[in-house]
Amino acid sequence: MNQHDLLPAIKRVTVADLEPIALGATFLGTGGGGDPYVGSLVAQVAMERQTGRQHVDVIAPEELADDDFSMLVAGMGAPSVMLEKLVNLAPLEEAVAMVEQRAGRKVTAILTAEMGGGNSMIPIAFAAQRGVPVIDGDGMGRAFPELQMLMPHIEGNPICPMAVVGDAGERVLIEAVPTVKHAEILGRPLSVAMGVKNTIACFPMDGEATRRSLVPGTLSLAHAIGNAILRGRREGDPFGALFACLSRSPHYRHHARLGEGRIIDVSRRIERGWTLGVCRVKTWEGDEMELLFRNEYLVAKRDGKTLATVPDLIMVLDAETAVPMTTDDIKYGQRVVVITTSAADCMRTPKALEIVGPDKFGLDEPFIPIEQRLSAQAHSL
Amino acid sequence: MNQHDLLPAIKRVTVADLEPIALGATFLGTGGGGDPYVGSLVAQVAMERQTGRQHVDVIAPEELADDDFSMLVAGMGAPSVMLEKLVNLAPLEEAVAMVEQRAGRKVTAILTAEMGGGNSMIPIAFAAQRGVPVIDGDGMGRAFPELQMLMPHIEGNPICPMAVVGDAGERVLIEAVPTVKHAEILGRPLSVAMGVKNTIACFPMDGEATRRSLVPGTLSLAHAIGNAILRGRREGDPFGALFACLSRSPHYRHHARLGEGRIIDVSRRIERGWTLGVCRVKTWEGDEMELLFRNEYLVAKRDGKTLATVPDLIMVLDAETAVPMTTDDIKYGQRVVVITTSAADCMRTPKALEIVGPDKFGLDEPFIPIEQRLSAQAHSL
Repeated sequence: MNQHDLLPAIKRVTVADLEPIALGATFLGTGGGGDPYVGSLVAQVAMERQTGRQHVDVIAPEELADDDFSMLVAGMGAPSVMLEKLVNLAPLEEAVAMVEQRAGRKVTAILTAEMGGGNSMIPIAFAAQRGVPVIDGDGMGRAFPELQMLMPHIEGNPICPMAVVGDAGERVLIEAVPTVKHAEILGRPLSVAMGVKNTIACFPMDGEATRRSLVPGTLSLAHAIGNAILRGRREGDPFGALFACLSRSPHYRHHARLGEGRIIDVSRRIERGWTLGVCRVKTWEGDEMELLFRNEYLVAKRDGKTLATVPDLIMVLDAETAVPMTTDDIKYGQRVVVITTSAADCMRTPKALEIVGPDKFGLDEPFIPIEQRLSAQAHSL
Repeated sequence: MNQHDLLPAIKRVTVADLEPIALGATFLGTGGGGDPYVGSLVAQVAMERQTGRQHVDVIAPEELADDDFSMLVAGMGAPSVMLEKLVNLAPLEEAVAMVEQRAGRKVTAILTAEMGGGNSMIPIAFAAQRGVPVIDGDGMGRAFPELQMLMPHIEGNPICPMAVVGDAGERVLIEAVPTVKHAEILGRPLSVAMGVKNTIACFPMDGEATRRSLVPGTLSLAHAIGNAILRGRREGDPFGALFACLSRSPHYRHHARLGEGRIIDVSRRIERGWTLGVCRVKTWEGDEMELLFRNEYLVAKRDGKTLATVPDLIMVLDAETAVPMTTDDIKYGQRVVVITTSAADCMRTPKALEIVGPDKFGLDEPFIPIEQRLSAQAHSL
């Protein structure tokens, strides 16, 4: 693939870009991450409130200087609650300021924790509010349910100091933890105690650490995916536009249509803050597909045969519009297309798989990259 | 009562004083607060490790200068877990240091949160370790199950910054809360996430605020009560010695023997970190007594008639030795004496009753001070 085939990098985010970014982030949310609708309104308000300009600058990872200073921001909690509670920009500023105070320096660029679902919008809102650029990249390249599943952790950066701020004015600073898993163990019940919705800032890093601790280009990717789906719908071929877009992404270019049909069963339960369950799809060919999920889709099977697993991305798209459907959205009777794409390379390394491999989600499956599965399938034909 | 009748004030705590203080604190624990045994060993080790001296100085509240600086320290968690986990002095030092760092000054004296059960020993251990005096007083004058039930809150001091430190190296600083109840709501799940045992430091106060935000003299009182029971046992009349001691306390002098008999039923359940239940006692006269508890004994009834309620203290004592029994200790068949004493005056003011009155524990009862109940009883005879 030559340089011209690659997706264009976004250099600034305007209000008009929020819709495609939100749509692309829902796609990368791979079923989880929550709905970015409310987040996009907040980002819009923050952008419109700026004096003298109406956009946010985007900085490419390679443009970060060693002495730049970044951190991750995100909302933590249950997506369904996030949709119902009004969003407040103040806790976002508070959370970053708490970590800045402890670090003794101000952020020069902000990093998206999770370019999947609602968390795609939080850093844009902060960037607008503070007047700093947002980095083109994120900590996961998709959505994942736990804090240790972030690239900054996989690359060995400490998560602390980590600020956890509630909407009622609760400000908690986790100053030290023996392992990042403890930050998750402490952060999750704090989130519940704050009303299942709060804002976190963590993983303060200099520019050098930031550059090697992110999945690059995912803001541009979300923007391009969203635009492809929107344009494709207008032009009558959303799937064609989507697949053409994915083919131009260095990380996500391997992809496959796993099946198309009608949802015949969704069983879902809420447990310890997660949405757990199974979605069954009867394909037009008469096969049965089974998708297990924990916030995100974890594994896709067809007639008992595994077709794809985490960390590769599995998406359920509306068969008409190619709009991605979250594990909260899917319902009996819907016509869907199930697809998969490769995860970012850095999420498939041996050290990444120790943290985000299928066994970490309770699956008794090896991780086989989708391109290997496709190649084996081609050979067996 | 003239000055000479009052209990003597303790001026220093030696290793030999730990046993009576622990015993007196179990009495003031009014059924809750946990067993101070492990705590007393920790205090002993801390005292013996000191170079050049083997005691801890005690400072009377009135000796505190306006520019002194204190805070409260305590263990938070389930008493049963506290007994099983080895105690570590490091988190205690960490917790205080975190609040000191935020306040920009060092403690000059340490305040006991709860002179009931195990928390009586934590400040003594800290005082020995750091070489500062411990204040003769505490935040409750008894044991209570929640953070908002502390005199520093009743007197309007902010609880933050509040440090919550776990044994595995978790360090969390609650920097701000909209109300003290939120500190309880955030602190309790943190305690659970840290293994149902942690160390907290909170309510940093200058000397002036400290003086008006404590129940004075309770370290001396616990020491005197413990000594009275121990001496009474040697001399064959522990109840006589105990009641004589209580009569000399300005706060706790009103007391009554509510009944004596055998425990015929204990129903107990653990719920959200509390020990809840009912204890039934068949008196020698054939009446049935009922004691409701939530960690601490909340109300004592005899044949359906209420005899005493929180915030007054209700204790179940072994009928032979007058040793106080916690709500974890009581068992079917034990011979017990149920007694009550007045709570400290400052815990019975209208503003205190808004926080620690019977209705705050779910009881549909007015608070009637024990001396009024006794006087009404005397008139009705």
